[in-house]
Amino acid sequence: MFITFEGIEGTGKTTQIKLLKEFLESRGREVLLTLEPGGSRVGKELRKILLNMESIDLTGEGELFLYLADRAQHVSNVIRPALDSGKVVISDRFADSTIVYQGYGRGLDPKLLRQLNDVAVSGCWPDLTLLLDIDPEEGLRRATTRNIQDNKMAEEGRFEAESIAFHTRVREGYLTWGALNQDRIKVVDASLSPDDVSRQINEIVADRL
Amino acid sequence: MFITFEGIEGTGKTTQIKLLKEFLESRGREVLLTLEPGGSRVGKELRKILLNMESIDLTGEGELFLYLADRAQHVSNVIRPALDSGKVVISDRFADSTIVYQGYGRGLDPKLLRQLNDVAVSGCWPDLTLLLDIDPEEGLRRATTRNIQDNKMAEEGRFEAESIAFHTRVREGYLTWGALNQDRIKVVDASLSPDDVSRQINEIVADRL
Repeated sequence: MFITFEGIEGTGKTTQIKLLKEFLESRGREVLLTLEPGGSRVGKELRKILLNMESIDLTGEGELFLYLADRAQHVSNVIRPALDSGKVVISDRFADSTIVYQGYGRGLDPKLLRQLNDVAVSGCWPDLTLLLDIDPEEGLRRATTRNIQDNKMAEEGRFEAESIAFHTRVREGYLTWGALNQDRIKVVDASLSPDDVSRQINEIVADRL
Repeated sequence: MFITFEGIEGTGKTTQIKLLKEFLESRGREVLLTLEPGGSRVGKELRKILLNMESIDLTGEGELFLYLADRAQHVSNVIRPALDSGKVVISDRFADSTIVYQGYGRGLDPKLLRQLNDVAVSGCWPDLTLLLDIDPEEGLRRATTRNIQDNKMAEEGRFEAESIAFHTRVREGYLTWGALNQDRIKVVDASLSPDDVSRQINEIVADRL
């Protein structure tokens, strides 16, 4: 089973992924946690380029192809081998991030993005995607606090530095894309307490097991 | 005017590009020399990943998208600005390399590769492509000698380490792709002396000026 978490910055994906891992392990499943960008060896190099504040010269297309390269490596060298060995794989972001950020956020064609992702994932689409939804102002407040605490603003703050208008487009893009893929993508209200969010997620996942 | 050089390893592209620059400058043209991968700031990082011998874990798709990312950055941040300022741009490798190496060499679909490149170059296809053709055994002998002399085997030797069968497929792929794009791609016999090769190239370019 391949599960992905999606949503704008500051929805609490990292916390919820850890809680879901504990839940699945308590049910006897072996779980691999991974993330994008940066889930593979090459991906770690690409993550530095993609998230660094210095990368102001990244074009929409350049950014897009770097994410697709990261994804192709991630699927082939990390995700597919883990699924083949019977693990549940949980990825913090996956193909939907590209479709929503580059499509709804940056204005590239979502249909083209879907086709490009088909090449990158070569058949390995998630079985279930949990879309953590929150108001962008609240999300950005949380994400910026976290980056300052972790001293990661320069290193990984490129998306947090985008305008609130960008994050609002992305949030709305996620909801639109989620509505177009209702069988796979489940929307979770991430404005609640971590425990309440976790309960929603465990119910959805338990249904699928 | 946008000119690209293509061909397998060891055809003498670097030498011929310098000679063509001198020829064009003697006719009063301003020339920008550039290359792929690695023509842009981000591209330099990608070049390290793409050509390093450590990158044995690169998948066909991962490699493809890294080249496309490099190209998108190269076009937008280097090639187009130089063309707009009236310069002649000469690039050591460009989109045809991806179509031939990933398509004919690695077995991806050349038609899909052409479409992906259309996204990466966004309209900026070369006006003229010089395809330097040589027997793969002779080319590899030259390229390996050069890499050993420059002490670059580990750093940039990933393609030279491919089998002779791979380089033969690539050479034949270049000739096929060249035949399909005769208006733009001109085949040059690179087995001759550097001076004789240069004379062929200058004639072709002079015709186009």
